[in-house]
Amino acid sequence: MPNFFFGDKKDDKIILEKEETTHLKVIKKNIGDYVEAITGDGYFYRTKVIEINKKNSILSIVEKNKSKKEYFPKIHLILGMSKWDRMRLIIEKAVELRVQSVSVFKGQKSNQNYKSVEKFEKIIIETLKQTGFPKIPNFNFVDLYDTKKKNTLVLDFEQNIDFKTAIESIKDQVNILIGPDLGFSKNEKEFFKENKFDIVSPGDTIMRFETAAIYTLSTINFIKNRL
Amino acid sequence: MPNFFFGDKKDDKIILEKEETTHLKVIKKNIGDYVEAITGDGYFYRTKVIEINKKNSILSIVEKNKSKKEYFPKIHLILGMSKWDRMRLIIEKAVELRVQSVSVFKGQKSNQNYKSVEKFEKIIIETLKQTGFPKIPNFNFVDLYDTKKKNTLVLDFEQNIDFKTAIESIKDQVNILIGPDLGFSKNEKEFFKENKFDIVSPGDTIMRFETAAIYTLSTINFIKNRL
Repeated sequence: MPNFFFGDKKDDKIILEKEETTHLKVIKKNIGDYVEAITGDGYFYRTKVIEINKKNSILSIVEKNKSKKEYFPKIHLILGMSKWDRMRLIIEKAVELRVQSVSVFKGQKSNQNYKSVEKFEKIIIETLKQTGFPKIPNFNFVDLYDTKKKNTLVLDFEQNIDFKTAIESIKDQVNILIGPDLGFSKNEKEFFKENKFDIVSPGDTIMRFETAAIYTLSTINFIKNRL
Repeated sequence: MPNFFFGDKKDDKIILEKEETTHLKVIKKNIGDYVEAITGDGYFYRTKVIEINKKNSILSIVEKNKSKKEYFPKIHLILGMSKWDRMRLIIEKAVELRVQSVSVFKGQKSNQNYKSVEKFEKIIIETLKQTGFPKIPNFNFVDLYDTKKKNTLVLDFEQNIDFKTAIESIKDQVNILIGPDLGFSKNEKEFFKENKFDIVSPGDTIMRFETAAIYTLSTINFIKNRL
């Protein structure tokens, strides 16, 4: 499995912060050695180590290659705030399954209230490094009621359209809306009904919330030959 | 999400061990109350609590219903010993995605050597309870070299047949062979080649080992309309 260094690009250099610098030392890289780096901008960088300090290190860019793979249709995952281990799992798998963006909302039944994007971005970057992908997905907090009906599939038990048909009908873009782990409130379900959202269920079999999300992302990738 | 009690069936009674008895007390069930129970035999039991002791409790069976759902094709997951958190995750998701059996082998690159089935069975039972399924999948340790070519798909990067075609061609039964997390050894790969195993890759995108497994199980369920 590849492991890329993740840093900040400044002109023709990439700056690694403390944690990445430690990793550089752990794998015994010295000044003059070559390493692969990503910065989240869609490019793979081949670089040469030119400085290793206590708190950071500096890589000089030798070669720049654009990621060849385009992941299409575009997937936007919208996720209700849930227990951290489950959130972490879904976001990790969503990045591996190459979603283009992730939004998180506080549902009425959410028993968590995350305020900082940092811990989410840390998981995203860790997964990009380990699975060799150079483009960082967008991440933000949203209000559930700002979600538009168009191109959105809500995952819930009380479906109103067929899962398979819905997955096969996806065109250029899809929003997958799920959770939180404790489910949607009565008001939230009414919002979906009043606004005629497409509601799908991955099957009669009871799945945990995170499994339903990973299952759905997997099937979209398979049907659309996306990976 | 349902939560069933898991116990041992003895005639028309179900015996709950200590941990399940504690759970019974936590949710404040008393003698005379009704609870739902499973024993792994394929039936859902409606029961009445007749004894609550320190170390166990006894439920009397009131009604017995067979699980209506048959999961077909049958899936047998064969998994290389890997880090525990990854093993745990795959087995949990495999049970949710209703595999009929799980086998675990020690690959040459496995850095773990599990000897006891107990910790595996504990995860399996926990997942059955939480996702309401009454039939316990088989679990055992196997030798990789005892795997037969017939009906087996090996998940690896160096595929020799098309993933989509392979998934669509599955008939009554399939063995999904994967891992360990550090990959197959040279000898193991030669064994697959010499014996002409079908080797598939879920895509060009690099996935972690557990993600490839969950992705593959998801696609089989979707294509075969299995859940």
